[in-house]
Amino acid sequence: MSLCGDDHPKLIARINRIEGQVRGLKKMVKDDRDCLQVLKQIAAAGGALRSLGSVILEDHLKGCVATAIQNKDHEAELITEVVDIFNKFSR
Amino acid sequence: MSLCGDDHPKLIARINRIEGQVRGLKKMVKDDRDCLQVLKQIAAAGGALRSLGSVILEDHLKGCVATAIQNKDHEAELITEVVDIFNKFSR
Amino acid sequence: MSLCGDDHPKLIARINRIEGQVRGLKKMVKDDRDCLQVLKQIAAAGGALRSLGSVILEDHLKGCVATAIQNKDHEAELITEVVDIFNKFSR
Amino acid sequence: MSLCGDDHPKLIARINRIEGQVRGLKKMVKDDRDCLQVLKQIAAAGGALRSLGSVILEDHLKGCVATAIQNKDHEAELITEVVDIFNKFSR
Repeated sequence: MSLCGDDHPKLIARINRIEGQVRGLKKMVKDDRDCLQVLKQIAAAGGALRSLGSVILEDHLKGCVATAIQNKDHEAELITEVVDIFNKFSR
Repeated sequence: MSLCGDDHPKLIARINRIEGQVRGLKKMVKDDRDCLQVLKQIAAAGGALRSLGSVILEDHLKGCVATAIQNKDHEAELITEVVDIFNKFSR
Repeated sequence: MSLCGDDHPKLIARINRIEGQVRGLKKMVKDDRDCLQVLKQIAAAGGALRSLGSVILEDHLKGCVATAIQNKDHEAELITEVVDIFNKFSR
Repeated sequence: MSLCGDDHPKLIARINRIEGQVRGLKKMVKDDRDCLQVLKQIAAAGGALRSLGSVILEDHLKGCVATAIQNKDHEAELITEVVDIFNKFSR
């Protein structure tokens, strides 16, 4: 299988922003910034990761999963994997 | 639309357990139990709610969403709603 | 130890509302309401539980933990327990 | 205020690992790896961020907050900020 959805540049741009947030986090620690600012930056990067996950999940459901259901090709297995991912993100 | 999946008694049994956890929580507060015990009980009830959500989501994907995709009937709208739910649970 | 904070009626009122949400959830399943409505109700009850947890955590930090730190009485142990709770809620 | 806790190299090492996970994520997208592998990597990076947050929170409670409580110096304000962070991470 490959990555569903075809706008990879959009995903790469999002990941670059997250990489920038993580580098910013490292600079905040090196600069000895106060804990609460660092914790807010960690929460912001975590939120950006969740948004990226939700974009990829939507592409996955509209792409791979929809195709599998139309072709009755391992669709139950794919749906179980989507629920596993939901559980990974929701706990 | 109606609730996907046909094992409603299984869902009712889960909800009854969660209701029992919430009543237990109320008793803990009335009994002036210590904060950490109360917070652990809150976390346990929250975990049980998430598990219930994941069972219903799996029924939904295997039932309503799969049918919508096969019939090409508002499937994009249904998938968007699934992603909204994912976002509600993951943040 | 006992429950920090002295406004137990406020907490009981919150827990009663959560109990009402869980009973509403059971009725939605019995009435065969659609999955997305049920999932939204589950997310709402989960959110109300988290808010309750955050009220109790604040009372705990301002009450029990502050007293322990002032008296240097097992404060490290109490703080470790607070972090355990943070981990329970954040994952 | 500055960053509580004095083991900054430990934190920098954790952040470097997270930065590596995010770069790995970018490579997975460029390599067109399948959605579920990408989503699992996103969840792993999110988990590493939460663990980093919990280490910094523990240092903060044992350091800055404990000092503020002992000195009765804006301790209520600091505790409110800790609860805000708890809410950011738990929802």
